[in-house]
Amino acid sequence: MKIDLNCDLGESFGRYSLGMDEQVLAVITSANIACGFHAGDPEVMQKTVALAHENQVAIGAHPGFPDLVGFGRRKMQLTPAAVEADIVYQLGALQAFCGGTPLHHVKPHGALYNMAADDLTLATAICNGIASVDPSTCLIGLANSNLIKAARQVGLPYAQEVFADRQYLPNGRLVPRNQPNAMIADEDIAVQRVLRMVKDHVVTAVDGSEVSIIPDTICVHGDGPKALAFVKRIHAALIENQIAVTAF
Amino acid sequence: MKIDLNCDLGESFGRYSLGMDEQVLAVITSANIACGFHAGDPEVMQKTVALAHENQVAIGAHPGFPDLVGFGRRKMQLTPAAVEADIVYQLGALQAFCGGTPLHHVKPHGALYNMAADDLTLATAICNGIASVDPSTCLIGLANSNLIKAARQVGLPYAQEVFADRQYLPNGRLVPRNQPNAMIADEDIAVQRVLRMVKDHVVTAVDGSEVSIIPDTICVHGDGPKALAFVKRIHAALIENQIAVTAF
Amino acid sequence: MKIDLNCDLGESFGRYSLGMDEQVLAVITSANIACGFHAGDPEVMQKTVALAHENQVAIGAHPGFPDLVGFGRRKMQLTPAAVEADIVYQLGALQAFCGGTPLHHVKPHGALYNMAADDLTLATAICNGIASVDPSTCLIGLANSNLIKAARQVGLPYAQEVFADRQYLPNGRLVPRNQPNAMIADEDIAVQRVLRMVKDHVVTAVDGSEVSIIPDTICVHGDGPKALAFVKRIHAALIENQIAVTAF
Amino acid sequence: MKIDLNCDLGESFGRYSLGMDEQVLAVITSANIACGFHAGDPEVMQKTVALAHENQVAIGAHPGFPDLVGFGRRKMQLTPAAVEADIVYQLGALQAFCGGTPLHHVKPHGALYNMAADDLTLATAICNGIASVDPSTCLIGLANSNLIKAARQVGLPYAQEVFADRQYLPNGRLVPRNQPNAMIADEDIAVQRVLRMVKDHVVTAVDGSEVSIIPDTICVHGDGPKALAFVKRIHAALIENQIAVTAF
Repeated sequence: MKIDLNCDLGESFGRYSLGMDEQVLAVITSANIACGFHAGDPEVMQKTVALAHENQVAIGAHPGFPDLVGFGRRKMQLTPAAVEADIVYQLGALQAFCGGTPLHHVKPHGALYNMAADDLTLATAICNGIASVDPSTCLIGLANSNLIKAARQVGLPYAQEVFADRQYLPNGRLVPRNQPNAMIADEDIAVQRVLRMVKDHVVTAVDGSEVSIIPDTICVHGDGPKALAFVKRIHAALIENQIAVTAF
Repeated sequence: MKIDLNCDLGESFGRYSLGMDEQVLAVITSANIACGFHAGDPEVMQKTVALAHENQVAIGAHPGFPDLVGFGRRKMQLTPAAVEADIVYQLGALQAFCGGTPLHHVKPHGALYNMAADDLTLATAICNGIASVDPSTCLIGLANSNLIKAARQVGLPYAQEVFADRQYLPNGRLVPRNQPNAMIADEDIAVQRVLRMVKDHVVTAVDGSEVSIIPDTICVHGDGPKALAFVKRIHAALIENQIAVTAF
Repeated sequence: MKIDLNCDLGESFGRYSLGMDEQVLAVITSANIACGFHAGDPEVMQKTVALAHENQVAIGAHPGFPDLVGFGRRKMQLTPAAVEADIVYQLGALQAFCGGTPLHHVKPHGALYNMAADDLTLATAICNGIASVDPSTCLIGLANSNLIKAARQVGLPYAQEVFADRQYLPNGRLVPRNQPNAMIADEDIAVQRVLRMVKDHVVTAVDGSEVSIIPDTICVHGDGPKALAFVKRIHAALIENQIAVTAF
Repeated sequence: MKIDLNCDLGESFGRYSLGMDEQVLAVITSANIACGFHAGDPEVMQKTVALAHENQVAIGAHPGFPDLVGFGRRKMQLTPAAVEADIVYQLGALQAFCGGTPLHHVKPHGALYNMAADDLTLATAICNGIASVDPSTCLIGLANSNLIKAARQVGLPYAQEVFADRQYLPNGRLVPRNQPNAMIADEDIAVQRVLRMVKDHVVTAVDGSEVSIIPDTICVHGDGPKALAFVKRIHAALIENQIAVTAF
């Protein structure tokens, strides 16, 4: 049994510092590196790639909407052609810092990720963009979402992503964040849910029903001491349960 | 005998249209495509690459300072590390639209080009950036300038660029634009000078002295009907003189 | 009887030129000047304000979404607080070029205008932003839309805008552009509809019904020779019909 | 006897947080608020203005070069016309958040400040921009520099700024930061120098000579706990010495 831990990295920008990249790299296996549209800049990308290499963490792109002030978290209505071109641009920019090594994966960021999980046309534009750069790059998408469906249709490899601290709907999708019961505050419960998803491929939905889910990677955060402590805890629990923590 | 004609392309941005790309592609042999920092955007880059492919024109990157409102024409004092990272980023972004074909060349844009012609440290940062992406990509630099010197030192292939409509100093460099005699208004004279540079490797400097110059490529413009007519005229004169117009 | 003709101006940016501002200023009475978020830059704003002053055309702000590459035409989901702050920022920036003269009006641009016409919360955020800068500034909004409703609720003066070349729904709103019958191609018909709206306060909707509409201002365009010719034609028809063309 | 303490504020941007604005506002008397070009965004500006109002701290603009990734610290070669327009734009944007209260002062930021201290043409462009918005707004400029000279020539009120932790040249200007002895590390000495500048209008230059200096305001920093502690220490020393800490 094995699982990947992925985390958004390289989100600093110019004078602005964000995230505990060095510390979190010690416990994760896949890094999603911002590409300058919603966060990150060329020098930050260069340093983050070097840091990920040193830590032998798999390097992926984390493309987002062109909205720095909104950190890519605000929905934008772009044409599929614009999304595809934005994806190609950002992947290429990051790729160039990798010294010939192809990108291991791509995980869309923020509003782009969330919108594409719901919108097959948008998800397909993202997958087409990735495939046109390198059809062997793996898409990280929300488990059971249109991102995964689009990857299958385009013929792109994919990894299904699950969340430790989020509640699920009976259809295997996340309870939206604006709903009161979206989050799981109790870390013990969160860790137990992760273990069950990885070992048994099942999660208890918000209505009590059991939902099938096949996780390839767990989304973790490194934007503060509390988040970092939680990643370490998940990591330790996985190891204790003989689950290999390794890139997909 | 042969020579290359290079032109800046893909300088449109969003709603803003610039240049007569389709027409000029019919007569040039190397396209310098803007990469989104001083001009161009992902969709424009995609279309321009496709257009250059169709016209069998060699595709190169035209990276500039991150200054869209100034069109990359305003001097900026960046660290060599920042310049190198900006170059890598822009080259990668353009490269990703080329479907696996490596970039034929790189020509720095505007103030970056002019500053690097004078500043070996800056020129070296540019060359290091190019070499880290692909050491077989050719730098287009001002003939006899520090750009060429840096390329030699870094071991990067280079092409020396000359200008049809500019006066030269006895040291083989251009008369600065802010001087009254910088430009050559008479097109007949300009064409004759080009032919002499290509055939005899010599140009008459502003003081009447003869200067040695070895041109690999001629800079031409496609930003208006008059510029386009002049490119066609140079092209015709080269052909008439049995000089092959072909990418270096 | 009187009517205002308003036009978007100052949409150039840096090296990029857009619109026939000088010519259109001779026939319009209200200028909506871009404020640097979706188009325009400080020098363009300065020149456009000066040009409008010279032509004795009323100066208004044309704030948009922060999306230069999308020209403010792509929907963005911003919080009301962000929209309000973006409005205040853009109005202040333009105001500063006006030498103490208060802004005559504000017309939201592109996607912001269209979204606010449908969304009272967004429209209210816009009106609150305007009112916090100067509660005597007039909002230009789509006739019969939530922009007008919000202005009434906030206590902001408003001008109802109509379109010469667009079809109307029975509820007094526009037929969306993505529908085949959205536009009126025949200029004779368009001019007759304008005259009827101004004189009789009525327009024939797409289903043949008669809809009440009280126009304060007509939206015209100056982004090409054809558009300019049409503005002149509307202007002439209004004068011929003893309708004063003057700012509201 | 009295002196002003000024500090750069509102330098956060979108998701990025910078500075200890709330704490430093308790001890300073003038706030220089970033205007969105090198730092700050509309919502940050709105919040910072409100915070400064609450703390009864005088509100000024802190305009910079349009270079967010470089935090306005990189030299840019703009025309005087571009600088003037950029100043007007930024002042207007901030002004709009102040609810009718005029700006108390303007302090150029980073590279713009440093370049203008040396370059009278640039300094004059800045002063012209300020004067065109409101000729009663006060310029904060480096004591004995071309910023002060330009303000005098333009007829703009000004406040001469001094630095607690910097060494001075015999001509009353700062020792450049790239020189080894530019900074004063010993806080005791720094505080004593401040007191002497305020009380006796004199400072010991790096060569031991005594230099005349007439400080109106002291530059302090709030970008970290150490900087904040030092501001508090200067503030306490001023009070102990019966020097009123108050806006000029």
